Amino acid sequence: MRQSQLFGKTLREPPKDEISINAQLLERGGFVYKTMAGGYDYLPLGWRVLDKINKIIREEMNAIGGQELFLSALQPRERWEKTDRWKILGEEVMYQFKDRSGKDMGLASTHEEALAEIALRSVSSYRDLPFYVYQIQTKFRAELRAKSGLMRGREFLMKDLYSFHADKENLDKYYEVVGKAYLKIFNRLGLDTYVAEASGGSFTKEYTHEYQVLSEAGEDVIFYCRKCRYAQNKEVSEMKAGGKCPKCEDEVMSGKSIEVGNIFKLGIKFAEAFSLFYNDKKGVKKPVFMGSYGIGPGRVLATVVETHHDEKGIVWPEEISPFRVHLLSLSSKDLKIIKKIKKEAENLYKNLLAKGVEVLYDDREDKSPGEKFADADLLGIPYRAVVSAKTPDGRVEIKKRKGKEIEITATEDFLKKI
Amino acid sequence: MRQSQLFGKTLREPPKDEISINAQLLERGGFVYKTMAGGYDYLPLGWRVLDKINKIIREEMNAIGGQELFLSALQPRERWEKTDRWKILGEEVMYQFKDRSGKDMGLASTHEEALAEIALRSVSSYRDLPFYVYQIQTKFRAELRAKSGLMRGREFLMKDLYSFHADKENLDKYYEVVGKAYLKIFNRLGLDTYVAEASGGSFTKEYTHEYQVLSEAGEDVIFYCRKCRYAQNKEVSEMKAGGKCPKCEDEVMSGKSIEVGNIFKLGIKFAEAFSLFYNDKKGVKKPVFMGSYGIGPGRVLATVVETHHDEKGIVWPEEISPFRVHLLSLSSKDLKIIKKIKKEAENLYKNLLAKGVEVLYDDREDKSPGEKFADADLLGIPYRAVVSAKTPDGRVEIKKRKGKEIEITATEDFLKKI
Repeated sequence: MRQSQLFGKTLREPPKDEISINAQLLERGGFVYKTMAGGYDYLPLGWRVLDKINKIIREEMNAIGGQELFLSALQPRERWEKTDRWKILGEEVMYQFKDRSGKDMGLASTHEEALAEIALRSVSSYRDLPFYVYQIQTKFRAELRAKSGLMRGREFLMKDLYSFHADKENLDKYYEVVGKAYLKIFNRLGLDTYVAEASGGSFTKEYTHEYQVLSEAGEDVIFYCRKCRYAQNKEVSEMKAGGKCPKCEDEVMSGKSIEVGNIFKLGIKFAEAFSLFYNDKKGVKKPVFMGSYGIGPGRVLATVVETHHDEKGIVWPEEISPFRVHLLSLSSKDLKIIKKIKKEAENLYKNLLAKGVEVLYDDREDKSPGEKFADADLLGIPYRAVVSAKTPDGRVEIKKRKGKEIEITATEDFLKKI
Repeated sequence: MRQSQLFGKTLREPPKDEISINAQLLERGGFVYKTMAGGYDYLPLGWRVLDKINKIIREEMNAIGGQELFLSALQPRERWEKTDRWKILGEEVMYQFKDRSGKDMGLASTHEEALAEIALRSVSSYRDLPFYVYQIQTKFRAELRAKSGLMRGREFLMKDLYSFHADKENLDKYYEVVGKAYLKIFNRLGLDTYVAEASGGSFTKEYTHEYQVLSEAGEDVIFYCRKCRYAQNKEVSEMKAGGKCPKCEDEVMSGKSIEVGNIFKLGIKFAEAFSLFYNDKKGVKKPVFMGSYGIGPGRVLATVVETHHDEKGIVWPEEISPFRVHLLSLSSKDLKIIKKIKKEAENLYKNLLAKGVEVLYDDREDKSPGEKFADADLLGIPYRAVVSAKTPDGRVEIKKRKGKEIEITATEDFLKKI
């Protein structure tokens, strides 16, 4: 993609109303635009990152038998009254309003009720279980104050997976399967997560599990052990910072952290509310066990920015960077050399495209070398390739965003390696 | 995918509250679930179709320089007051409600205002134009009555493309480019569309263009010429059924039709409302010209069903069918033969998967041959492959959903051809 045509300009200064690092860097880089507090638009650069995050999540969900679907955000009141969550969520986070005909409507912040109802049409026998369905879909939450940038939105994409089982043992087994898939996902996304025990709330006396990333930007606090990686959310923890880990006796640490995912055994609460029963092999009527499992792709993106940046800008992990190579063509005062630089840069651009390499080509003619370097650091693409008056013939200057060394490489070698 | 594990069962009868053919067939087939009038959930089969429609649209949008982004549904009132559409759309179709802090919020039914505002940050010089951005994103419309199934939803996916230009000539040129891309899209989707002239409303005195598919389920009426394909929406037409086509003098026809897409020159209305100006080469300040171009993927899906079905069910065009092959393994009363059938069907299933063919394998053990055939006709997958007691060794029965002939083919030949 030619940067001269890219929609979304970089800003020299972050917008004044942004206090979180993720929103500051993402807005400065032209990845996102803030429509309101807690409401962000993904511009082409930001969407490319989000789309890659979604692809990774989809791959791993499909690998554990997840079937993708796509549910309505608009919800009728009646459905949510079956679990009393029309009232509970209405007081907390659910946008609720009246339709033109006076009917009560809500915007879904989660979809357990919807799926329990839909499953009624599909589940009657033990043969119909288990199954696993997920979506990547926009959720709404009526947050009173939204000040953590993309971390806590009033509207945000959510990957929510729901599982349905004949008994608790089957749920327990799949819960472990999802747990492993989540670690794989966060690993691919470049996030170092602790799996922290947390409260099951009104659903279960067992712990649920949160995937926590240590970060000063976090709204949670976890106690954790660096050695055996045992962790608990502060809310349920009996551990103390400086004390001994109950599992391996190493020192317990504490720190702020960001919850990027959670897995949750729902038990039979929803089956009971919606009369979701099945007949087992002997013809005995039994309730369906459910689990639900969430990851917020937008929050993941924000967390990656919080944990992968330096004073100059973002440093994207390779698998989710909007582009792999940032090609810079630098201008010169010598008109003859300008032509030569342009020709070489255009050639390299075409060769990279031909090889299927995702490349952002800074072909802007009204930007100084300094501005281009600053933008490259801000945007955080893993490989920077520079063609300038200083570059010897047939060569290109390569710098990794992560490192400091500049390497002068034969263009052909670079094309082979990348 | 094994049908025994697929989420979403077929129904013998359509739900009683459905009057439109698209919703009847899609609900019976387990493609969708109705959450409320005008609010449909896409179950795995339906999502597979929708996802394929989206992919085709994305390919053609990218081919004409479209940059994908993803905007917020939640909208602040202030933004929409600049064009007076807070009031106009609020009276018609926009869901509006108060936030927890008492702030007015709306759910976007379109995104011209949002993009005109966002573009302010990106457009200052002629160098920044033109550009084209699009999204596939959920829109909301407060329809009072929603009775056309998936055709007119309160919530629906929309592909909306917006273009920004330095002058009218440039907009006019791109408008033609989009027009051609739209024809290509609908062609790939298996829809025969008439490009009908329609009213420009308050935006322009010129005609806009609607992509109309003839169907009794349509809410529009067009006058059209079968020979030269000139068409007009009834609302603006001076043609009469039985009269002469003003372009080629052939007979004018009229018919109900479904609008599956539209293209619209917005002119400088939004530039003026948002002060979206740029400096031309001479440094003169000028307004930005905009165009907007919509396709509703869910309505496309519904239209395909309305125009591609028979008395037994849906007949999907190949490019958007949820699967390419529907493999049926039929049970028998002879226990020995059951084993053999199952083995052959399993082998064929694995071989198809290994070849990368998308196959739905009806491996259900509690369904009769009659039920399986009926489901295959209802689901409408292009190729039906049957393994039964009657199938000779090493062969398979192939029937196209479109045709009537059953062909007994060597399994190897079928694998090669498909």
